[in-house]
Amino acid sequence: MSDSMLEKNNQNVCQNICNDFHSTIEFLGKRWMGMIIYSLFSGPKRYHEIMDNIPGISDRLLTERLRDLEKEGLIVKRILSAPKRKVEYELTQSGKKLEDVFITIIAWTQAKNES
Amino acid sequence: MSDSMLEKNNQNVCQNICNDFHSTIEFLGKRWMGMIIYSLFSGPKRYHEIMDNIPGISDRLLTERLRDLEKEGLIVKRILSAPKRKVEYELTQSGKKLEDVFITIIAWTQAKNES
Repeated sequence: MSDSMLEKNNQNVCQNICNDFHSTIEFLGKRWMGMIIYSLFSGPKRYHEIMDNIPGISDRLLTERLRDLEKEGLIVKRILSAPKRKVEYELTQSGKKLEDVFITIIAWTQAKNES
Repeated sequence: MSDSMLEKNNQNVCQNICNDFHSTIEFLGKRWMGMIIYSLFSGPKRYHEIMDNIPGISDRLLTERLRDLEKEGLIVKRILSAPKRKVEYELTQSGKKLEDVFITIIAWTQAKNES
């Protein structure tokens, strides 16, 4: 499947599938984006929990990325009021499905480092 | 495999595998990087052929990205002298293996657009 699929797409680089691919890979590759999504695979998290998981990220960038992810429908912001008010971020179904993508990236990286 | 693998990694976000993952996804997500790699899946290409395949990319960025890819061992620059001198860029074995990553990204994007 793989060869023929990409081979065929290559005939029309930058049309349809390819444009979508282009947007996705550059979205996921934005600074800290991958790590934020990654940190949410283990379940919903509060803002400061995500922050604690990612040394080096700034407040401004975390806020911006969470907004990007919400806008793209990859996370939802949940406001809980009881027993006390708290805000949590959770991956949507679509966001959770990125796990397959992340697993192939990790596998490729490990293979590259071992070669 | 998938759940337990990422679950386990999440316990040590930003260590080892996770740092590598972070570097890889941000490398692949650099502006135009994905499209340049994509255009090389169908075989070695000359500079202007890559350029023609990617409307919108600038000379400066294409040159810079090809240099990044060469430095990371994902492409080789081949200089052919006969019958006349020409320069071609070709994916290495490691670069070719990115096809698996790209296929999962395309599949995820298509599923997201259809949902």
